[in-house]
Amino acid sequence: MLVIKVGGRKGLDYDAVCADVAKVFQGGQQLILVHGGSYQTNVVAQQLGHPPQFVTSVSGYVSRRTDRRTLEIFEMVYCGKMNKSIVESLQKHGVNAVGLSGIDGRLLEGKRKSAIKVVIDGRKRVLRDDYTGTVVQVNTELLHLLLSAGYLPVISPLAISFESEAMNVDGDRAAAAIASHMNAEQLIILSNVPGLLREFPDESTLIRHIPAAQVEKYMSYAEGRMKKKVMGAAEAVQQGVGRVVFADARVADPVRSALSGNGTVIE
Amino acid sequence: MLVIKVGGRKGLDYDAVCADVAKVFQGGQQLILVHGGSYQTNVVAQQLGHPPQFVTSVSGYVSRRTDRRTLEIFEMVYCGKMNKSIVESLQKHGVNAVGLSGIDGRLLEGKRKSAIKVVIDGRKRVLRDDYTGTVVQVNTELLHLLLSAGYLPVISPLAISFESEAMNVDGDRAAAAIASHMNAEQLIILSNVPGLLREFPDESTLIRHIPAAQVEKYMSYAEGRMKKKVMGAAEAVQQGVGRVVFADARVADPVRSALSGNGTVIE
Repeated sequence: MLVIKVGGRKGLDYDAVCADVAKVFQGGQQLILVHGGSYQTNVVAQQLGHPPQFVTSVSGYVSRRTDRRTLEIFEMVYCGKMNKSIVESLQKHGVNAVGLSGIDGRLLEGKRKSAIKVVIDGRKRVLRDDYTGTVVQVNTELLHLLLSAGYLPVISPLAISFESEAMNVDGDRAAAAIASHMNAEQLIILSNVPGLLREFPDESTLIRHIPAAQVEKYMSYAEGRMKKKVMGAAEAVQQGVGRVVFADARVADPVRSALSGNGTVIE
Repeated sequence: MLVIKVGGRKGLDYDAVCADVAKVFQGGQQLILVHGGSYQTNVVAQQLGHPPQFVTSVSGYVSRRTDRRTLEIFEMVYCGKMNKSIVESLQKHGVNAVGLSGIDGRLLEGKRKSAIKVVIDGRKRVLRDDYTGTVVQVNTELLHLLLSAGYLPVISPLAISFESEAMNVDGDRAAAAIASHMNAEQLIILSNVPGLLREFPDESTLIRHIPAAQVEKYMSYAEGRMKKKVMGAAEAVQQGVGRVVFADARVADPVRSALSGNGTVIE
């Protein structure tokens, strides 16, 4: 079992990624695709007059401020625009993909953060009307049901709270949760950087290998959004995923490139 | 097997419909829910600066002009906003719903209209860049897979063409195709009118019963959007669905009200 996360930053060529995902899937590899959509969410939120806001937690992690209106925009972009265009592209490449969000069939179930402690303009504040959370359970039965019937699941990183509220969850950590609950051998996290960089943004300082036991030590090299990727990787290897690769979505055949060891390999 | 279509016009209380759908499903009735979203699509299209356009075919049917940008907005509203809020509501009511579009798993496959003959300002024109079509095949295996595992499928009326392009399809006719391919005993079409009216919009002129063999004769009473509902009903009964009911989504317990015979019953 292989889990692939493809990021949602500006300028990624999803059709090229889907073409390569299709080749790997058609080669007989069972796989699950998780996608991002943050850039498009920002664009649409701006167009709809509800501009994106980001908050930094007291521990230094950046996340999207998700009031109910933002959650709705997030659903439109992730489950509508992104998910369906990826499913359509995979179908064009001959793969019978099925798009789901974590809300569907309680695929990703977790804990909504009842209060988020953030720092705004240097001052601590507590947000209580935020629809974000973390994944605790994965409905592996639903995924196995679809995989056994030959479908490729394409998952939007929303989740459902234990109280049945839709929530925004981090895509990298959702992919890590899926990989560990599905006992995947490997998790590939594709984005618009070649991997973890010792001196961001200098791509020549790519870290090629991290021993699984030392992932957390490397957290200090992670800038901004990369922090959640490293956190997801740490969670995945701790929970038994054999190998996590941070790799470049912009190269030719990005999935097979990552499988062959290009990028930052954690194992 | 029961198929329910709930319309997408202004002012429908989806949460009330979902509460009733949940009661019927929890009573042991296998069912599939198909939803609309035209009003919200108009609102979002307007907000995004790509206002909705409607065209009238030479045979008098009104449909949404669907260029590629409209298709994307349609996906955002139907698969994102509408579908996920319905799934969330059903989950709150204790039903393990799974939202899908007709693109997913090639659930609804059909023929894209390569050219649409329309009348604009009294003159005939041919549109060639439209992403609309009609459903020909239904992936009943995928629906049975989910139903057997206890899930309630919630379907957005998009379809995939035989050439793997996403398309907008009419929701009422998609529901009719699902009902006939799934050998449903009954199809309930809920909207913001009490049924087919002899003198639209006078609700006291409700037509209570139409013999299956005579549906097409009643087409003359159908105004605007109602035409596709009557066409869908005619297709469903011709293909073996025992009973089609046009009923009011705005009443208390709308599904059980329709099941008990309120509305326009075709059988």
